[in-house]
This record gives sequence, structure tokens and C-alpha cells, in this order.
Amino acid sequence: MIEEQGEIATASKSSELADRSTPFIRKEWYVAAMGGEVSRKPISRTILGEDIVFYRKQDGTAVALQNRCPHRSFPLSLGQVDGDKIVCGYHGIQFHSDGKCAFVPSTGTAPGALRIESYPLKEVGPFIWIWMGGSECLDESLFVDQPYFSEGWRWVHGYLHMKANYLGLHENLMDTSHFPFVHGAALAQPEHAEVKQKIYIDGDAVVLEILHKRTPIFSQKLQCIVGGSSEVDRLGYAKVRGPAGNFGHLKFTNPGNENEFYTDYLLHLITPESVHSTHYFWALVRNVLTDDEDIQKDIYQLAKTAFMQDVVALEEVENLLARDHRPSFREKLIASDVGGVQVLRLLARLASEERTGSRALRS
Amino acid sequence: MIEEQGEIATASKSSELADRSTPFIRKEWYVAAMGGEVSRKPISRTILGEDIVFYRKQDGTAVALQNRCPHRSFPLSLGQVDGDKIVCGYHGIQFHSDGKCAFVPSTGTAPGALRIESYPLKEVGPFIWIWMGGSECLDESLFVDQPYFSEGWRWVHGYLHMKANYLGLHENLMDTSHFPFVHGAALAQPEHAEVKQKIYIDGDAVVLEILHKRTPIFSQKLQCIVGGSSEVDRLGYAKVRGPAGNFGHLKFTNPGNENEFYTDYLLHLITPESVHSTHYFWALVRNVLTDDEDIQKDIYQLAKTAFMQDVVALEEVENLLARDHRPSFREKLIASDVGGVQVLRLLARLASEERTGSRALRS
Amino acid sequence: MIEEQGEIATASKSSELADRSTPFIRKEWYVAAMGGEVSRKPISRTILGEDIVFYRKQDGTAVALQNRCPHRSFPLSLGQVDGDKIVCGYHGIQFHSDGKCAFVPSTGTAPGALRIESYPLKEVGPFIWIWMGGSECLDESLFVDQPYFSEGWRWVHGYLHMKANYLGLHENLMDTSHFPFVHGAALAQPEHAEVKQKIYIDGDAVVLEILHKRTPIFSQKLQCIVGGSSEVDRLGYAKVRGPAGNFGHLKFTNPGNENEFYTDYLLHLITPESVHSTHYFWALVRNVLTDDEDIQKDIYQLAKTAFMQDVVALEEVENLLARDHRPSFREKLIASDVGGVQVLRLLARLASEERTGSRALRS
Repeated sequence: MIEEQGEIATASKSSELADRSTPFIRKEWYVAAMGGEVSRKPISRTILGEDIVFYRKQDGTAVALQNRCPHRSFPLSLGQVDGDKIVCGYHGIQFHSDGKCAFVPSTGTAPGALRIESYPLKEVGPFIWIWMGGSECLDESLFVDQPYFSEGWRWVHGYLHMKANYLGLHENLMDTSHFPFVHGAALAQPEHAEVKQKIYIDGDAVVLEILHKRTPIFSQKLQCIVGGSSEVDRLGYAKVRGPAGNFGHLKFTNPGNENEFYTDYLLHLITPESVHSTHYFWALVRNVLTDDEDIQKDIYQLAKTAFMQDVVALEEVENLLARDHRPSFREKLIASDVGGVQVLRLLARLASEERTGSRALRS
Repeated sequence: MIEEQGEIATASKSSELADRSTPFIRKEWYVAAMGGEVSRKPISRTILGEDIVFYRKQDGTAVALQNRCPHRSFPLSLGQVDGDKIVCGYHGIQFHSDGKCAFVPSTGTAPGALRIESYPLKEVGPFIWIWMGGSECLDESLFVDQPYFSEGWRWVHGYLHMKANYLGLHENLMDTSHFPFVHGAALAQPEHAEVKQKIYIDGDAVVLEILHKRTPIFSQKLQCIVGGSSEVDRLGYAKVRGPAGNFGHLKFTNPGNENEFYTDYLLHLITPESVHSTHYFWALVRNVLTDDEDIQKDIYQLAKTAFMQDVVALEEVENLLARDHRPSFREKLIASDVGGVQVLRLLARLASEERTGSRALRS
Repeated sequence: MIEEQGEIATASKSSELADRSTPFIRKEWYVAAMGGEVSRKPISRTILGEDIVFYRKQDGTAVALQNRCPHRSFPLSLGQVDGDKIVCGYHGIQFHSDGKCAFVPSTGTAPGALRIESYPLKEVGPFIWIWMGGSECLDESLFVDQPYFSEGWRWVHGYLHMKANYLGLHENLMDTSHFPFVHGAALAQPEHAEVKQKIYIDGDAVVLEILHKRTPIFSQKLQCIVGGSSEVDRLGYAKVRGPAGNFGHLKFTNPGNENEFYTDYLLHLITPESVHSTHYFWALVRNVLTDDEDIQKDIYQLAKTAFMQDVVALEEVENLLARDHRPSFREKLIASDVGGVQVLRLLARLASEERTGSRALRS
């Protein structure tokens, strides 16, 4: 643990921490879409302020291109996919899936200058990831390995559009003391607000570990996995390497028998849309009861409900910021913010390194 | 009368007059809410750009606190009242009704640095008043005495949210020449537009006196009070001491017998929300027919209809300002603006005194 | 032809071309309204950022005045027309149709300083035109003669409110290569995108000529006019002298017999409302089948549908501009943009001449 929780009690947020004036971090893999959203019919999504069109080639590979025709700024997503190319709906200019112009009907040519930006993608499990740092700076090493999206595992996943800045979601995820107040009995008991969170630095990443003893386990079938206990000790682990995600797992153990347990992977995948809005993707991955459709539905519903509660809370904060003007106001830090503070410090450093061109080392 | 009406005919508004770029006057008591709006369930309202939460303590006393948790800016109005304390709905931080932190669940402490702003309140008659000048600068002498909110009196009152700057409402109230055009036959005859308004300075306040002869009196029961006359001479008196209100009374006299009359108190209470919106509270207080429920309903309806007509007119002006761009345009003054001009001059002076720290003397 | 189409292929737009930061051109006649919109009941419309009220005098003449009372900025369009005067709905101030104050009820006077701006109008055919350059700079020579709005001719016309900047509409009209993509089979075949457009300067105006061979002709009755042919060669001609319009005609000829043809006049009349919105009026004028009500309805429907397709496309571009932030992005030019580029160059020059006071010579 790198910092005693008491040390930062009620300090104000400082300039070393990322805030909404910090530029977006571009050299990163972000989730762009759930795989099921992208088809032969193009769709658009704005990521880090850039509007992007997504479609699939004939072989099923996903494509991401600048959603703005270089000629008259028409959204390409309103055009047609033709083979592997996309055709602008305004003057019919065609683009290859790598962004090169394929054909201009009015001239019969394909000028090199009409090239549009192409974004590297990776499709793993239920998500399509996008590299926002420019093709020429592509860094495969920054992609986080996700071995659990494979045979023998089953997952629930979803997408929430949040009308709030993404930093609040990072802070929210690194401080579980909100569980009893935002999520209530389904996730936590009142006394769980007081549980000490262990925060430490692992390489370049920030890690949170938290043990919630005797939490309810909602399904009889899952109770059977841990020896029939209706309560479990839930050990949470969450790791943040950069702006795009909070990767973790949850270990559920029978309080009476440490050998009876199972583990879920839990991914919160965070993609800024604008300063005031965020794409929030999530997944919960298990290797128990993988064929049980009831459990599948129940976990989905429980997770979606909980994450929507976070979204509502953060949107209410965003609404307040728009109407409350207190020039001298600075948010205060308390001990349970150690994790969030470490993440904001990491993001401020990564943004600064991007500006100055120094390379970020990330674990 | 301090100024002949003719003197300012068709001058342009000058920089000595308050306009929408003038800072709000903070050292003032404003109406924050109707008493019936505030209960054990917290509500929020933005006043002078500050978002404020209101609730009642167990003994019924109203409380006003900064509606922004100092930790993560969550609106406290979305939390719970517990005893006399309010509990944030995000991380459960508790605050006493004086703004001091009572408890932080994640640390078990109550740091002094987590104190939030508390606003002095006064509840008189149907309204809760708030002091916006800071607890340390509390000035009881600026509170306007309202002795008629007491035994033997009966009132109607209401609240209108106006999407327009508050200064237009002050101008509107100090120039009755709009009556025939905005309110029509219920309040005025066409010739009432021409009636000379008497404007004078009383101590530090601006006073309007206006006599509308032979106005209709809508209720037979009220006609009985003035000897059965279906018309009355209506003498209006309105006094403005600062930004928060136009306090006045109306004397209704039988045109044929000056001894047959009754008097109502009329309060227009004006609380800026933002530069573009205003909370408009009003009350009409009488000591005749106090037990008559029909009269009670009729007066309420008549007053609400008239004040809503003013609100609609001022909102239409605000809408026009948003779409009409004439860089060299300056509003022109005419003789009937003497009262409004004096109020704008007073407000400009009060704002200036607040900036420079010199003390405003107010009657 | 002043420029070979190949010359400007894939250059970026330069500072010599008008863009949305170029000030509006005020010394121009713009269409303000369709005649049928203006009656004894006043209406308002914002043109070049100025809100204007329109009504008709007792003799039917249309009037345009500043829609902002000089006293308290109330929209005059919410008042009443009384004889030839308009009466403000707030304090009853009356204005003559030339903008002079006629009466102030509260003072009984008519101060000269309360004059409001009056706009010269011309009503020709279905449209009311307004001079936005100031009465003192009125230039009748800039009004485009429209002799076809007269006996023996019949027209369809309409109005579309477009939530997009007006320059895109000018560019759109000078490049017919969008026809197959935006309008589809009703107006063009796919191969029509490739047809070379002839662009030349005629005096001070930009002219487009374009021949679309073998386009479908939708009505049997119109087919009879050109000898029963179901296809026609359509020769388009469009002339732009300034910001307010694209005046042209269409010649429909039997591909097998050049003596069988008829001609329609086609007017696209463009009036900026704000930087982000435009009033788009249009008319199609013919001297064949003038008594045929079915043809009248069919042409109206066909034209309205096509022009609405342009509006939708340009609004989608405007929406994209609001969400896509690419600081280094500059739109690219291709050969088919020669006409649009010439128009943007003309408009940049006219705006510059207005700023510097040098007189624009226009054909």
C-alpha cells in the first residue's frame, strides 16, 4: 500500500490530477462498440471528439474510418457500403476500407489527396477496440490481454451512454465506499462503506483490492458453487493502466470454507465521447454455470441495474455543475479517494507525456 | 417628485443604470421558496447562480445549505434527511443543519474541512427568505418588516418561474402604463395608460404612486365593502429598496365617497436564478372578507392571471434578445420610465458598493 | 469556360473563398417571405440576424419593420395592426409603416428618437423581397428582373427552413454531380454524375450549364409537349450574381427532335437567418399546361421532395460539424467544384467590398 488512507484526508484536488481541462489521451486502445452493433449497414460514433463510421467488410472484419467526407463534410455513415468500400451519400465518392479514395464519380479519378483517416481495430470477445493514437503510432503492447473471452467462459456485457465526463466514472470505480448508498442491499451492507480499501502501484498501474465480508449471493444455483452458503466474502480486485478501462475480478468465497469459491472477471471500459459525455461498456465473465440461461439473464440484469445507478449519479453531478457557480469551489479529498487520486495522477502524467512526446511506460 | 417626467424623454439607457452585465447583489434577503414547498424531503433551487438545498428540521425549522457535496459535487437534495442532518446519496457523508460535516462513513470521522455553506433563513407568512450575503455579513436591518402576515389578515400568494432577466420585471412593476396593453379590461381602461405616475425617493428607496380612477371591481361582495359601487378609484403605492422586492399596497375607494375604502398589501418578490431566469413570488394580503373562500379563490385567479401576463411578455423579450443582433441598439427611455430608471440606478449603486466594499444605506 | 475542371482537383479551400466566418452581405435584395404568408396579422422572421416584423397595410402593400420596440425590446409582431400602423403589445407605442413613432400613450407624444428601422420591400410574383443594406443605400439596380411572374405563366413555389449555413446550399446548386446520390432516379441516372459541367463568368455573375441526356419525364401530359417522348435531354442553366439567389432555367428537349422542347424557369432563393440556419425559397415557372391542376400538383410535389432532400443532406453536414472536432481538417476541392468555388470567391469579394466601402459591380 503506497499511501496510508489518512494522509490525504480533506486535501483539495491539485493541479497534478487530471480534470476536465486535461486533453484526452489519444495513444490508447478504447472500446469503440459492441461487436453486435457493427454490421454491413454503417453506423457512426463520436470518440474523443472525432466522428467515426463503422461497418464490416464482406469477410466480416470491422472497419473504422473518419465519418466525414473530405470533400463536403457529409457523414459517410449515411452512405452505402459497396463490397468492402463505403460510398458517400452526397456526391458518391468511394473510399476503400483503408481510407484511400477509390473513385470520384464526377471526375472518374481517385485522387490520393482525398484519403480519410483509418483507425486500427481489434475485435476480442464482445467488443471492438479502436486505436486513437494514429496509425503511424500504433502500439500493440498497450492492448490489454483478455484471455477469458474464449472457450469455456461465458459473459454478459452491455453499453451505457453517460452524459457526464469520464473521470468521475474512474473515481467512482476506485472507491467502493459508495456501494451502500448508490447500489443498496443488492451489492452491499451499510457497514461496507467503512471497509478499508488497499491501494497500490503495480508497475505503472493503480490497483485496488477490497474485501466485502458476508455479502448476499442472490441465486441458489450460485450458492451451490460455494457449498450452499447464502453469503460470500467478496474480494474485489481492479487495475487501471490508462484512461480506457478498469480491469478486475471478483472472488466469491464461502465464509466458512476458503476452498469453496469462484471468480468472475469484471471489465469497466470507458471511452470519452466529449468533455461532457462518455461511452461506458462493461462485461462480467464467468466459467461457472456457463450453460445456465437463467443465471445469464439474472447476472445481466443485476449488473446493468448497478452500473446504471452509477451513471445516474454521475449525470446528476454533471447537471449540477452546469447550474452551480461557485468560483472558489474545489472538491475535497478524503481517505477513501486514494485510489481515485492515483488514477487521476496517472492520467495527468499520461496526458502530459503525450503533449511533450515522452513515451509512457505502461504495465 | 424628484424628476419631471418630461426630462428623460427618449434618452438612451446609460451606464449608470443596472443591466444584465451588472453583478447580482448578494447582501440582500431574497425569497427562496414558499413555505409549503419545503418539507422533510429535500428540494433544490438555484439562487443568484448558487444551487441550494432546502429541508425542514424535526422541529419544522427550514434549513438552507449548499446543494453540492464538497467531496464529489453530488447534489445533496438527492440524498436523505436523517433527524436534522442531511446525508449525501453518493458516499453517505452527513452534514449538520449548520453545514458542518457530521460523519464520513468511509473514515468514521467528521473533518472540519468538509463544511458546506449554510444560508440564514427567515420564515414570515407564506415565504421563506434567504440571506445571500454570507453568514458573516448577516444584516437583519435589511429585512423588510411584514406585519400584515398575522392574525386578522388573509392572503393569496404564488410562484412563477420566469425565463427572463429580473431587471425587466422591476421596470415592468414601476411603469403601470402597460396595464391596458398587457392586462386589458380586468385591470385597466385604455385611458389609464396616460395617467401620470408620481415617482419620488423616500430615504434610499424608490416610490411609485399612481391613481387609476374608475377601475372595475369584479366582485359584488367587494363592491359591498365600498358602499356598493361597481367602480373604484385605485391608488397604487410601490416601494423598492433593493433587488429583492417591490412592496406596495392598493387602496380601493368609492369614487363617490372617500370614506368608503379598503386596502390590500401587494408584494412582488423577485429572486434572480441566473442572468436569464428569475423566481417570481407574489402575495396579495387583505383584512376584509377574510373568511370568504370564494373571494379567496377569485383574487388568487385574478392575480395569478395578471402576473403570468407580465411573465409571458418578459419572456418574449428574452426570446427576441437571443435572436436579434443589432450591435448599435440601445433601449430608449420615455417619461413613464422615471420609476424604472430610478430602480436601475439604485441597483447599479448597490452593486457598485458591494464591489468596492462601501456600505449601502437602505431605508 | 474560365477554368478547366482538372485544375483545382483536390486543392484545399483557401481564404479567398467565403466561409461561415465571412460576414453576411447586406447590400442585397433577399426573399423575406412568400406573399401569402404576410397579412393584416403581423408575423416575424429573422434575416441576417435581424428580427423583422411583416404585415400588410390597408391597401395590401407589405411592410417590414424592425421587430423590436426601441423602448423595451418587445417583439412588435406580438402587437396589433391598427390601420397602417403597428401597436406594441407592451406599452402601446404606435409606429407608422415607415418606422416613425406615431404615438406614445403614456406621454401623448410621438418622439422622433423612437423611430425604428424600416426595410424597403418589393413584391413580385409569389415572393416579397427585402433590401437589407439600409434605406439610405437602396440600390434598385441590384434587383433581378423576373418577367416570367406574369400573365401566361404558372408557377409552383415553396419555403423550406434549413438548419444549416447558406453557403453549402450555393455549393450544392452549382454541382449537379450530387443528383444521382441525393435525388435518385426521379432526377438523374447514375451516369449523370460524370457529366462535365460548363462554368463561366458572365459579367460579374457565375454561370453553370449542364446537359443531362435522356432523363425520365414523369408525366404523360408533359411527354406530349415534347412529341410523346418518355425521355428528354435536360439542359440546365444557373446564374449566381450574389448571395440571395441562384436564378436559372431548364430546357427539356425531345432527344430525337430538337424542335420539340419547352423551358421552365427555376429559382433557388437563399436568405441567411443565422450562421447556422437559412430560409430557402424556391419556384418553378412554366408556360405550358398552365391550366392543368394535376400537373400543378405533381410538379410541386416533385420539386418539394427534391429540394427537401438537399436540405436534409446539408442539415446532416451541419450536425456533423457540431460534433466532429478535427482542428487540421480543411475540405478538399475536386473538379466538379469549379462552380461552387467561383460562387464562394464572388461572395468573399462582395463581403470584402462591403467592409471596405468599395462598390460591387454586379451584372
